[in-house]
Amino acid sequence: MFKIYEYNKSRELFSRAVKVIPSGIYGHQGPAEGCYVPVEAYPLFSERAEGTYLYDADGNRYIDYMCAYGPNILGYNDPEIDEAARRQRTLGDCTTLPSARMIEFAELLCDTVNIADWAFFAKNGNDVTTLAVMTARAHTKRKKIVFFKGYYHGVSPWTQKIDYSGVIEEDVMNNLYVDWNDINALEELFLTHKGEIAAVIGQPYMHGNFADNTLPEADFWQKVRRLCDEWGTVLIIDDVRAGFRLDLAGSDHYFGFEADLICFCKALANGYNVSALCGKEFLKNTVSGISFTGSYWLSAVPFAAGIACIEKMRRLDLPKLLIEKGTRLKNGLIDTAKKYGYDLHVSGVPSLFYLRIADDPSLMLHQEWIAECVKRGVFFTSHHNHFINAALSDEDIKLTVDIADEAFSVIKNRHS
Amino acid sequence: MFKIYEYNKSRELFSRAVKVIPSGIYGHQGPAEGCYVPVEAYPLFSERAEGTYLYDADGNRYIDYMCAYGPNILGYNDPEIDEAARRQRTLGDCTTLPSARMIEFAELLCDTVNIADWAFFAKNGNDVTTLAVMTARAHTKRKKIVFFKGYYHGVSPWTQKIDYSGVIEEDVMNNLYVDWNDINALEELFLTHKGEIAAVIGQPYMHGNFADNTLPEADFWQKVRRLCDEWGTVLIIDDVRAGFRLDLAGSDHYFGFEADLICFCKALANGYNVSALCGKEFLKNTVSGISFTGSYWLSAVPFAAGIACIEKMRRLDLPKLLIEKGTRLKNGLIDTAKKYGYDLHVSGVPSLFYLRIADDPSLMLHQEWIAECVKRGVFFTSHHNHFINAALSDEDIKLTVDIADEAFSVIKNRHS
Repeated sequence: MFKIYEYNKSRELFSRAVKVIPSGIYGHQGPAEGCYVPVEAYPLFSERAEGTYLYDADGNRYIDYMCAYGPNILGYNDPEIDEAARRQRTLGDCTTLPSARMIEFAELLCDTVNIADWAFFAKNGNDVTTLAVMTARAHTKRKKIVFFKGYYHGVSPWTQKIDYSGVIEEDVMNNLYVDWNDINALEELFLTHKGEIAAVIGQPYMHGNFADNTLPEADFWQKVRRLCDEWGTVLIIDDVRAGFRLDLAGSDHYFGFEADLICFCKALANGYNVSALCGKEFLKNTVSGISFTGSYWLSAVPFAAGIACIEKMRRLDLPKLLIEKGTRLKNGLIDTAKKYGYDLHVSGVPSLFYLRIADDPSLMLHQEWIAECVKRGVFFTSHHNHFINAALSDEDIKLTVDIADEAFSVIKNRHS
Repeated sequence: MFKIYEYNKSRELFSRAVKVIPSGIYGHQGPAEGCYVPVEAYPLFSERAEGTYLYDADGNRYIDYMCAYGPNILGYNDPEIDEAARRQRTLGDCTTLPSARMIEFAELLCDTVNIADWAFFAKNGNDVTTLAVMTARAHTKRKKIVFFKGYYHGVSPWTQKIDYSGVIEEDVMNNLYVDWNDINALEELFLTHKGEIAAVIGQPYMHGNFADNTLPEADFWQKVRRLCDEWGTVLIIDDVRAGFRLDLAGSDHYFGFEADLICFCKALANGYNVSALCGKEFLKNTVSGISFTGSYWLSAVPFAAGIACIEKMRRLDLPKLLIEKGTRLKNGLIDTAKKYGYDLHVSGVPSLFYLRIADDPSLMLHQEWIAECVKRGVFFTSHHNHFINAALSDEDIKLTVDIADEAFSVIKNRHS
């Protein structure tokens, strides 16, 4: 029997937070966004983190499968990355001129990412998806952008939806939408909007929320690539979430095609704040001509951390390792579910797995099971993909399966 | 006679940079942007920084009056701020849940900034100007935004210009423009666009590039405030550049009026990467309803640094101190210019001074003088405002004036 966690301090902190912060906690880390369902099963504030573990404000420990929603790829507070960052900090971080770390980081990315002839650094995934779309528009002198339904490319008005608060029709009137994996519909869009489509933007596979994650069908991306070539359209891969967990050379490389532009953030520097747009040579001058800059974009500490992170990921052949760990966990969870007669669907690439109990259309049973896992120290979410990090050990995986087992038994007893 | 600097290593690094980075160095820190004129007088890469000094890749030392374009407000590598950040880093930075540092920072800002009933944190100034405009549109259910000509509010497409690369007409078709300090023109805009104006957005005074900086005329802001109240329009102050160098309570407070929303970045955490939107209570729920988030936005290290930075700025009564230092420098430079028969105009608030030699319509003489200063160790720019930081000593100011004196003598000899 595992201890059941309580969240008194988290709740006290939240009641302080709502007084001075909109929503108390806003965005994807907040209880209002829909990742924490049921919200009463979740802690809301952390005290510290180490390796694969998150400790909440009440001192409860979790095996953290959200990994800060991606950034934690090597383990929290990885000593090698933190030491590289610390050394750079004694020299300088955000200064009037950039340091040579910027060049070294760009050179390393060009050497690591298959399509990268250059790199441009910013702070948010959103910064680089926006720059990618501006680059496509500048290059093609066209306006329209194709999105795959279920997409997420950040929070700029151009990538939001017309019924979202603060968005006006002009923000999104050049957006076209097509179903994931529907190559015929995409072909039709190109025919309907002849010579008007600046870019197709997509995540490497559909890893959206509230739905099983879906890989590309055979040759889907190759056909998209062909259509883009045929129509002179820029192909943008948003690798902000999946980047470096499938393939260090880029998730386009994993699926056997070449993007023109690829967007990275999250796992790029193990949590140090930096994002990058990488692209092919033919777009480099276009990017140079775009007015795009930010106060902290050339800060040297995140570059030093990013260099150390990429080097360590290369040394570990990390995506392979994370997919292996994720596969072991996936098999363990599915087998345990079976013992209780549950059919657990685990979708997506195992380093980014998505969970759903089948034959549960209301998702209530699934949410109950997730809640019982969380309250015993396994930080899953009900409707968002999860993330594996390098510090997750075989013992952690075994403990996760044991807790999942007890959680299954609790819901089985409750409903029989 | 001061030593004349050479930039061999900077140039070597730049030739490496252009191979893997668009423009080599992009944005406001790059040689293409127009701040470094003449570019051959400038170093391009830094090796380290400390206090008020920047050391370039060739080991040359500068008294740095750009302060990373604002972030360096207490001195580079301030030990107090760095220690607060280091302590937080051992606990955790970017983790799955926010830490209590987020709440403490929001509480401190609400206690410091006059109009702040709440705070929302992000990474770029651009993030929070965008959120401000979205908030105004959501609150008013209107589209149009009034800008003061000469403005800069970041790089999102909505705040760029139609002839800029990558921008489409839909991005900017709801923008209205009015001359700075022209209250009658603003009043007319409100009459022409009755019930259509969501927001007026402005810097606290006109501190744009390539022009003398201009303070608001008497009662200008009070009249703008009255018009906004009359028409139900949200008044947004973009304090990204000037924030905390005029008044810790906000630059609106310095000029005796109240913004509805105020945007901070740069000096908020002495270079640690964080920005903030602060606002009045009546807009808090509207902000809560907007979909706005980012991978690193709740990172705890920049919050810890921001708390330490605000506390130290309060203890030092910093804006007063920076304005005093700026005033001493300004008077020294003007007096030295006079010795050589030059009329040096120093505009803007002295903690953010802008320089121009008068009776020099081509600006060539001014640029020559700036070049001679830079090559001797005073990092000025020709057409951008400057920044004062707390670590600038009286000896630094004296040395600056001595170098400026020699630079005046060089151009005097050259042109007589």
